[in-house]
Amino acid sequence: MKFYTQYLIFNTKNRQEFINITAQVIEAVKKSAVKEGLCLVNAMHITASVFINDDEEGLHQDFSQWLEKIAPYGKEKYKHNLSGEDNGDAHLKRTIMGREVVVAITDGKLDFGPWEQIFYGEFDGQRKKRALIKIIGE
Amino acid sequence: MKFYTQYLIFNTKNRQEFINITAQVIEAVKKSAVKEGLCLVNAMHITASVFINDDEEGLHQDFSQWLEKIAPYGKEKYKHNLSGEDNGDAHLKRTIMGREVVVAITDGKLDFGPWEQIFYGEFDGQRKKRALIKIIGE
Amino acid sequence: MKFYTQYLIFNTKNRQEFINITAQVIEAVKKSAVKEGLCLVNAMHITASVFINDDEEGLHQDFSQWLEKIAPYGKEKYKHNLSGEDNGDAHLKRTIMGREVVVAITDGKLDFGPWEQIFYGEFDGQRKKRALIKIIGE
Repeated sequence: MKFYTQYLIFNTKNRQEFINITAQVIEAVKKSAVKEGLCLVNAMHITASVFINDDEEGLHQDFSQWLEKIAPYGKEKYKHNLSGEDNGDAHLKRTIMGREVVVAITDGKLDFGPWEQIFYGEFDGQRKKRALIKIIGE
Repeated sequence: MKFYTQYLIFNTKNRQEFINITAQVIEAVKKSAVKEGLCLVNAMHITASVFINDDEEGLHQDFSQWLEKIAPYGKEKYKHNLSGEDNGDAHLKRTIMGREVVVAITDGKLDFGPWEQIFYGEFDGQRKKRALIKIIGE
Repeated sequence: MKFYTQYLIFNTKNRQEFINITAQVIEAVKKSAVKEGLCLVNAMHITASVFINDDEEGLHQDFSQWLEKIAPYGKEKYKHNLSGEDNGDAHLKRTIMGREVVVAITDGKLDFGPWEQIFYGEFDGQRKKRALIKIIGE
């Protein structure tokens, strides 16, 4: 049985960003030498997401607008912000987008459909944060 | 260590459908001969979901109405649709319902609670799409 | 290859509760003796969640208020309730919060970021319900 662990580091310029990390995950699968198994990719912070969707700029703008409507930013809007934070909205946005993805590895490759791409979704950035790639298999 | 990979193919009559795929996943677990392990089931398209909930028609109608309220269909409603698509809403609906489920296998069976059933959720159907079953264990 | 299976039992005092189960999952990882692998934790009922977020009381109140807005309780509000239930809202709330988490195990520990904590989210409690911990690895 083989295992592979890798940490990705982010420090986004903007508070909110979607970053395509598919190439880094493909590289990790190669390094792992796993031919059959599972690949977990997860945000290690609770105001960020890892999710799979399309790499299309219009769609990413739709995601942003939609999340802002469902969970708007606002210092006075959330009880969590009474603790001195201003990121109550980011916890909710990440909940909608999800913490993690699990992807099958078949024949040494991510077993993906035609448009699947993996994104790191940052909702409270401009500081150092991490995501984790964990691969297990044979 | 054992591995098993199977692709399910869908071509729904309606744009939006929920299809119970539990029997197919149970069959895959049997074929895999895995007694202890994990079973990943995921949509391979980014306008479809795999999720676990109740097989109850009223609930499925509730899901549809609710998703339509949160992410209504509409050609003019989404920037993604400027690319010629009309499925911006389907990307958002799938995000709410989730891409994948991971289910434990114990004693050769899906380790399920009393009402858990696995569904393929289609939000932009009427064309060929796939879901993936990947089983690893021993 | 090692496997470990454990069921957690809940019977909450209130209809809706968030319970920190991180210590129980850490204990399960120790008992499993798995040094490298994956740990699945999932609700076994379809009106409950397992999710990862911050152990902060204000945030939990934000989650409750937010979920009540997105999927309000109401006997007359859901077709599912025509079956005699009153928990249509709970199925939707659990969908937002998610059924399961998959956490990496590295060096015999949950490979967590600084604030990650695992919660059982109950949306239709006051009766016996279960969650599952399944660990695989070496």
